[in-house]
Amino acid sequence: MTSGASSRYVRRMSFLDHIARCNNADLSQFEPWFVGATRAGFIHRDFAAVIAARPELFTHRDRAWHLAPALDTPARRTAAMRAFLLELKARGQFGAAWREEPYKVSTHFTAPTLLEMERAAVPWFGVRAYGPHMTGYVKKSDGLHIWVPRRSYDKPTFPGELDNTVAGGQPAGIGIFENLVKECAEEAAIPRSLAERATAVGFIAYWNQSGPQLKPDVMTCFDLELPPDFLPLAHDGEVHAFELWPVERVYQTVRDTDEFKYNCNLVLIDFIVRHGLMRADDPDFFAIVEGLHRSQPTHA
Amino acid sequence: MTSGASSRYVRRMSFLDHIARCNNADLSQFEPWFVGATRAGFIHRDFAAVIAARPELFTHRDRAWHLAPALDTPARRTAAMRAFLLELKARGQFGAAWREEPYKVSTHFTAPTLLEMERAAVPWFGVRAYGPHMTGYVKKSDGLHIWVPRRSYDKPTFPGELDNTVAGGQPAGIGIFENLVKECAEEAAIPRSLAERATAVGFIAYWNQSGPQLKPDVMTCFDLELPPDFLPLAHDGEVHAFELWPVERVYQTVRDTDEFKYNCNLVLIDFIVRHGLMRADDPDFFAIVEGLHRSQPTHA
Repeated sequence: MTSGASSRYVRRMSFLDHIARCNNADLSQFEPWFVGATRAGFIHRDFAAVIAARPELFTHRDRAWHLAPALDTPARRTAAMRAFLLELKARGQFGAAWREEPYKVSTHFTAPTLLEMERAAVPWFGVRAYGPHMTGYVKKSDGLHIWVPRRSYDKPTFPGELDNTVAGGQPAGIGIFENLVKECAEEAAIPRSLAERATAVGFIAYWNQSGPQLKPDVMTCFDLELPPDFLPLAHDGEVHAFELWPVERVYQTVRDTDEFKYNCNLVLIDFIVRHGLMRADDPDFFAIVEGLHRSQPTHA
Repeated sequence: MTSGASSRYVRRMSFLDHIARCNNADLSQFEPWFVGATRAGFIHRDFAAVIAARPELFTHRDRAWHLAPALDTPARRTAAMRAFLLELKARGQFGAAWREEPYKVSTHFTAPTLLEMERAAVPWFGVRAYGPHMTGYVKKSDGLHIWVPRRSYDKPTFPGELDNTVAGGQPAGIGIFENLVKECAEEAAIPRSLAERATAVGFIAYWNQSGPQLKPDVMTCFDLELPPDFLPLAHDGEVHAFELWPVERVYQTVRDTDEFKYNCNLVLIDFIVRHGLMRADDPDFFAIVEGLHRSQPTHA
């Protein structure tokens, strides 16, 4: 800290602070829930009473919750869960978050579907969600630039914060690449012919907790090099505006501020590492790269 | 398997097979050893008698080995360990592997040095070793190419196998980037001015066991784009010859064969992912990316 004249309080972030902020889950506050022998997610102790009130759906034994074995097909599980979630919705459980958008529940991305569940309920049941996060960049004569959108100020979640160029959740029934191409069109007016050049370059896993909600989520990272004369367009109300930033400005904004939506910082840190903008001898290098790949929680 | 006419037995590998082959350690055969409260490595049950014979150096309690607390500085530990290792060397413990090259023992790469230890002894004590692994590539009009060296046929380890463009172990007392620049000169006659353009783009961790030896190692991955007219030169006896391969040939050779030295496959798989040559919807995509970042062993 300097003792400069600035009276404005600035909380200095760092790359590792962003990783820690995303990985704030304390699993000791949760118990797992199972479909048969398969762990499907986690239930917070403050949400457990809601589950316990429906013993025909959920039973508790050995410090875990178990979905009724009579629900022996994905279709039966989906229907029973949907009826339950609609009751909770009617009681105001999900506020304005209900989207009428089914997410797949499974052990991992390519595993068979155990059931489908409304997106708004997913973090209440600690189910892993997926989504494509794309960095659209431009190679100019004066270096790498990144297209940075600011989220609409009237979005229900994280209004006005900076975001990845294109990002979205992963609904059931669509491939992640096709989903990205669709989001490119909807969020940034990137035509299919251009969006299909995007390449999957890795994924980032984190364990985030917000009160009783748990997001043990995975972001699949895509890069897309955009032509210098292409302008992404905010036209569906999700994005306030796009700006083309030199990568150094992105680097500094991620490092020093929390202007980006919390999980988007990790996608940009991964971009920074993959594009060779960190030094191997940086004392944080190993901790940063390791921190981007938290497939297991810190507090297990 | 096809029932074709080929009588030659071909063991088909896959990217995941290479990751599993590198991560073959069974930690139930090992016990940790500590310097004070800090875990420094692991001792295999078949090597334990050698340790147990020196109770003034190592004591056993609570299913772990403990270096004598009287050795209370890095210099004292290094000296006592060296005297012990020289005795073992005289009894033929390390065969031709002794290099007279000190490695740093610590909890992680940037942590303070607990002691230094001869390179040949490092896997006997299950100490994590580090090293730079660089992929030198060329962008040609017909696509990406990679410079592939074949190891000398008279190298003591993995003779005649294919390797990463430049790779080496990480001795104590030199930064990993400076070490890479040095290896670039020694192994491939890449001049400093060119080698210094190499960028650190991530690391790969694996837990490999070879009998009583454990390598819980970390390879720092570097990329270096080389000019099309630059030719790396095998001149120190480590490399038999370099060939420039189209990336598709590297992809197929890694996927289908074990011609590359076992851990070098992982560096090339990481290169393949980072350069967008895998599909996000490939059923192995998540397992591959996760498998490259095994900072914890599968069998713990």
